[in-house]
Amino acid sequence: MQSNPTTYAEIHEYWAESSVEERMERFAKLPLADAQEFYRQLSTRHQFELLCQKNEREQTVWIRLLDPDDAADLLQEAEEDEQKRLLSLLDDNTRDDVQALLKYREDVAGGLMSPRFCRVRPDMTVSEALTYVRRQALEVETIYAVYVLDQAQHLLGVTSLRRLFTSEPPVKIESFMRSNVVSASVEADQEQLSRLFAEHDLIAIPIVDENNCICGVVTVDDIVDVVQEEATEDIQKMGGSEALGAPYLEISLLDMLKKRAGWLTVLFVGEMLTANAMAHYEDEIAKAVVLTLFVPLIISSGGNAGSQASTLVIRAMALGELRLSDWPRVMRRELISGALLGGILGVIGMLRIVLWEQAFHTYGEHYWRIGLTVSITLVGIVLWGTLSGSLLPFLMRRLRLDPASASTPFVATLVDVTGLVLYFSVARVVLGGALL
Amino acid sequence: MQSNPTTYAEIHEYWAESSVEERMERFAKLPLADAQEFYRQLSTRHQFELLCQKNEREQTVWIRLLDPDDAADLLQEAEEDEQKRLLSLLDDNTRDDVQALLKYREDVAGGLMSPRFCRVRPDMTVSEALTYVRRQALEVETIYAVYVLDQAQHLLGVTSLRRLFTSEPPVKIESFMRSNVVSASVEADQEQLSRLFAEHDLIAIPIVDENNCICGVVTVDDIVDVVQEEATEDIQKMGGSEALGAPYLEISLLDMLKKRAGWLTVLFVGEMLTANAMAHYEDEIAKAVVLTLFVPLIISSGGNAGSQASTLVIRAMALGELRLSDWPRVMRRELISGALLGGILGVIGMLRIVLWEQAFHTYGEHYWRIGLTVSITLVGIVLWGTLSGSLLPFLMRRLRLDPASASTPFVATLVDVTGLVLYFSVARVVLGGALL
Repeated sequence: MQSNPTTYAEIHEYWAESSVEERMERFAKLPLADAQEFYRQLSTRHQFELLCQKNEREQTVWIRLLDPDDAADLLQEAEEDEQKRLLSLLDDNTRDDVQALLKYREDVAGGLMSPRFCRVRPDMTVSEALTYVRRQALEVETIYAVYVLDQAQHLLGVTSLRRLFTSEPPVKIESFMRSNVVSASVEADQEQLSRLFAEHDLIAIPIVDENNCICGVVTVDDIVDVVQEEATEDIQKMGGSEALGAPYLEISLLDMLKKRAGWLTVLFVGEMLTANAMAHYEDEIAKAVVLTLFVPLIISSGGNAGSQASTLVIRAMALGELRLSDWPRVMRRELISGALLGGILGVIGMLRIVLWEQAFHTYGEHYWRIGLTVSITLVGIVLWGTLSGSLLPFLMRRLRLDPASASTPFVATLVDVTGLVLYFSVARVVLGGALL
Repeated sequence: MQSNPTTYAEIHEYWAESSVEERMERFAKLPLADAQEFYRQLSTRHQFELLCQKNEREQTVWIRLLDPDDAADLLQEAEEDEQKRLLSLLDDNTRDDVQALLKYREDVAGGLMSPRFCRVRPDMTVSEALTYVRRQALEVETIYAVYVLDQAQHLLGVTSLRRLFTSEPPVKIESFMRSNVVSASVEADQEQLSRLFAEHDLIAIPIVDENNCICGVVTVDDIVDVVQEEATEDIQKMGGSEALGAPYLEISLLDMLKKRAGWLTVLFVGEMLTANAMAHYEDEIAKAVVLTLFVPLIISSGGNAGSQASTLVIRAMALGELRLSDWPRVMRRELISGALLGGILGVIGMLRIVLWEQAFHTYGEHYWRIGLTVSITLVGIVLWGTLSGSLLPFLMRRLRLDPASASTPFVATLVDVTGLVLYFSVARVVLGGALL
């Protein structure tokens, strides 16, 4: 394997650049231990691809290398018939675990959890518990978080191997376990989970059903990937495309085009309204061509202000800093911000027009009226961009849509159309009797 | 405390909404154990604020609650004299640790690491090592990763408590320790660290100096926060403002305005070039007012295409999927994408103009020439937006600037000016002799 790639980036690059046949050939040349380590590090998609190239005997070996949660992810790549066949290759225990996981979506706690966790009883002593934990050590996802359950699997408390390790051997677990456990429901989505991890600095979070019976455990190392993934999805949506769902260089050109063309076309069709708005003011434009010179400047300023506001609000929502009920506070803040930011741009715009007129005599005798028109419009459009950019994500969430879809280009399009109407309306008033 | 807020969101909300005096009063009413737990959960800024309100005897109590890495973060909030005084309140051990941490920036491994880790010698047996680990258990950041060092603190290998726990007591550590250790330098930035964690699914990464001597350890629970923080910074920059550096509701309005006004003004000044570009074509506009109707549509399409491309590329760079040397591959991909996406919009644009002419007779006898002008420009501007949006982040990185500063609004501004020149140039050719 090309000087034996070991980091994700190297593996990834090699994998993306070579054909399936090349990958198989290189893979076959690896020493077994390396190949196994390597196989575990591959992305789910590539694990599946490799598996498909093997015969059933080999498939059994490779699929059994995976932990139940990884095996479940892999099976979700397969068609239904194929899924059944691959399931049958697993040993009985793992099959049960995997089937339980397959009931949940990949991005909720139930789909992320490992069903193999470390359990003790409340009336065990520390030394009994340590012996018991040691016996489970090779089977469970983590032995560092130890869950205290009753006979019916109700979650009574939690302790850590560290705590067990530093407590006196004859002490009972129930005397020091933490009974106020941070847990999450099987239906909790991965964004909620990652927030719990960030808040509480935990190694693992137990996942419980509606009766507070423990179903599995999610460990923090899985959550690092989840946090990255969530941020990536949000960023891609905010940039005005669908989430790619695969690394940039790995996704096929056709798939990438599909993800990008949709939104781009929708925005284009929306933006066509600007042509209608402009056509509506064709007479004014013909009389005062000078007005058109500032159209790009004005609409882009509204778009920029709106994109700042929507970005800040969308991210604050994703981090749990803003909730639906916070919209009046956000509106207040953005009203003030928008008015001040618009004021700044309005003053600069006025200066620009006055200075240019002095230097080049570009704008004719009514230049100060033109300046006034541009300035007033700038204050209005920046205010409008800021307000709509900050409130649209709240509307999205209210409608149970993803706030990140209130993307920069979406806000810009909205602001463009209304901005034109505003500009020409202000012009009619300010320039009425002069140019118009 | 307002029904005793326990989650970060609740604490945060309460803290943001009340005055310093209210906070102090509520805090004073908490039972001591709760107050301590609560204090540890506060953000560094709020920890510092509370500390400033206390007398020196109390300050000693509160600052000693913090782990060395948290204490170091807190001290970085203080002025130099104050920092010295607070340092003197720590016990000698912690003070040494904190002073070592203060040598590094907050966002590099040296500033994130805890200097308290679990160490063993290679020639210890498993049972000796377990006893030794147990003795260190109350002092170290994590006992789950156990580092094997020689007398001079060189990092020879790593093992885990789990492994120790499941090995035979008389076996020597060196016989099974992993000597190919994933480590990072004290100067490694937090983005690199988070990628290492995501690739290798580790609980902790040892931080080493240039001689491979271990200085400390960074644990995965700290990295969840780091990953969120990095994504937030990138998102805010990509939205066209500076990174806020504080939660949206918590940052003062004035500070927020400062972070937003700078870029907004720069973009506005850049966008003023559109007024120059338009002025340059004033004669054409006067002759064919109909041309201006499509100006917003055209420049926004370029901006949207560019913002998609730059967003995808910036994120892929942050995830380590794209390196500087990948730019030719990206350019190839974006050339094809841009041409096809531009083609789609061009066709829709042509259809729109032809249909509108049939229905409303808006555009006059030369409507098909106008349609052709718009379509050709759309292909060109989408291609140009896509190319510049995808390559600008590479240029930024090459200049050692943050690629995320190649923000959506920045690319849009760039594309707007060139787009206008393109549009009127195409118009001169296609409409020459007809309208122009």
